Amino acid sequence: MTDTVTPIAAARAAEVLKQARRRCEPALREAISALPDPLDLMAAYHMGWCDAEGNPTDAGWGKGLRGALVFAAANACGVDGRTVVPAAVAVELVHNFTLIHDDVIDVDRLRRGRATVWTVWGVPQAICLGDALHALAIRVLTSAWPSAVGVEATSRVESAIVELCLGQSRDCAFEKRVGVRVADYLAMARGKTGALTGCATALGALCAGADSATVGRFESFGRELGLAFQLTDDILGIWGDPVRTGKPIGGDLMRRKRSFPVVAALSSGTAAAVELEELYRSATPITVTEAARAAVAVQAAGGRRAAALQADERVAAAIAALPNPNRAQDLLALIHFVTHRNH
Amino acid sequence: MTDTVTPIAAARAAEVLKQARRRCEPALREAISALPDPLDLMAAYHMGWCDAEGNPTDAGWGKGLRGALVFAAANACGVDGRTVVPAAVAVELVHNFTLIHDDVIDVDRLRRGRATVWTVWGVPQAICLGDALHALAIRVLTSAWPSAVGVEATSRVESAIVELCLGQSRDCAFEKRVGVRVADYLAMARGKTGALTGCATALGALCAGADSATVGRFESFGRELGLAFQLTDDILGIWGDPVRTGKPIGGDLMRRKRSFPVVAALSSGTAAAVELEELYRSATPITVTEAARAAVAVQAAGGRRAAALQADERVAAAIAALPNPNRAQDLLALIHFVTHRNH
Repeated sequence: MTDTVTPIAAARAAEVLKQARRRCEPALREAISALPDPLDLMAAYHMGWCDAEGNPTDAGWGKGLRGALVFAAANACGVDGRTVVPAAVAVELVHNFTLIHDDVIDVDRLRRGRATVWTVWGVPQAICLGDALHALAIRVLTSAWPSAVGVEATSRVESAIVELCLGQSRDCAFEKRVGVRVADYLAMARGKTGALTGCATALGALCAGADSATVGRFESFGRELGLAFQLTDDILGIWGDPVRTGKPIGGDLMRRKRSFPVVAALSSGTAAAVELEELYRSATPITVTEAARAAVAVQAAGGRRAAALQADERVAAAIAALPNPNRAQDLLALIHFVTHRNH
Repeated sequence: MTDTVTPIAAARAAEVLKQARRRCEPALREAISALPDPLDLMAAYHMGWCDAEGNPTDAGWGKGLRGALVFAAANACGVDGRTVVPAAVAVELVHNFTLIHDDVIDVDRLRRGRATVWTVWGVPQAICLGDALHALAIRVLTSAWPSAVGVEATSRVESAIVELCLGQSRDCAFEKRVGVRVADYLAMARGKTGALTGCATALGALCAGADSATVGRFESFGRELGLAFQLTDDILGIWGDPVRTGKPIGGDLMRRKRSFPVVAALSSGTAAAVELEELYRSATPITVTEAARAAVAVQAAGGRRAAALQADERVAAAIAALPNPNRAQDLLALIHFVTHRNH
């Protein structure tokens, strides 16, 4: 990717995300506050709105990329954001339900710099909360529009969730498996990340009244963008600035994650690949020093370059899928964000 | 409850359940086989259709009570079972998704005499599979009927799931809490068990075209029946024949479960209650001998009688909710099953 980061483009991307969060938040808070106690407290805690005792905080609920994709796709179809708020809220609820379950699955103790739900309330409560947010997302969708749109939106969200579960299931299986190929990785990431971003842009177009061919093109855009997002995430997971990402340097390597750069490096047939495979196969925990050396090995084996090239291809495919790029300024701004983010 | 168990009533109940399973199974198999690999394998294993390698087995997928409630309610509204198959399939999928998550939550290693999904494939895969079956249940609903019915059915199922998550969340919290009252228990069980059985009978009536007042009455029937089912389950969990239930004698006591008989006994102000509270508060594991003594204490403190009386009240309330009991032979047969079952 050409690295022509203009401050204007970056500011535009930040504005699109911020406006989307501002539009979503009242409806998100309303939906979550309607949950019965203690599900409402745990959900509000996860969203950064309060501490574990319920005292208000302002820790933030993430970038809100998926909600922003709904608004941006609707905007590209000529429809004002307000009418698609329920769709944006639903995809953010789905995203957050999967995060709560993922934190259990990955035994992650921190999310957005705070203790994860399972760390505070235990695994059983975190599983229940995730299930409830999944249900809540669909309730928001079914109560929002005329039945026909509600049913199609619901069906699309649930299909995306099945894909997402499959991607997560495969990602878990990768950690115990050698011989994961680039194609395996891409199929996994298409489910784990691309399915929901594709669903987000499809819902934006659908709720804006687009025909099914157009909805399909927006879905393709979102899927490709999601894949590019995941590839950038993988790069940041190894070489990201820990101050910005909130994650340790080489964290993905210490956890033996078979992320794209690692999978590409392992397939390279280089001496660095052999060294890396030995490290991943060893039974002892990977130290910070070993992770730093592994990061050099992955880069030497071309893993970082391959990930960046793959992200470029996905971005190109995303833009090619757009029916009318000139009308899709917000979506293009989000592409800029995805490819230039540093956290 | 009067204990006039007639062989004819028992046979009728068994037939209603069997016919419902026979009607559901082809559509359940079709829905599950459409899941991507390996979710399809894990789901088929959970349903008892194959072993962990995919070789066909015939282990059975449970009683199918919730599916049977859909058919029986539709039948009471004068509609043939065939048209409500998707609703029956959806509630069974929801029930099974919650079982898979519950087994993780309760660290249960056995279900229907076989190793639970998390025991075979690990907790991460079991969480993913449960999430996918939740999504699949809704996909079945949204593709089955005209949009308006699909949207209302979906909304009801998701509301039931939120209640169910709340019930499960509270049940988990009970295990760490003293001073659980009978009212707390009933509120928990209404969510954990009553919400989905109420949803099942409501869907049967809804899909049969009943008006909303009638749907509400069938929902009440299902909720009360579910509570009676749970109370019977609690009695079996302490005094059930281990050969029939497949669970150890006093299993619920060894796990310090605050089931209805225990909660009622603890509230009795008797010497037996004090003895029981001491046992539940002790830090050491409860032995088989202690559990047997505790079962006697619970009975002496009136816990068993209170549970049976409460079940009777719920059954009476269920029957009172029915718009026309004379037309609801299958629902009455299921009441008989719920109150006279021994496993």
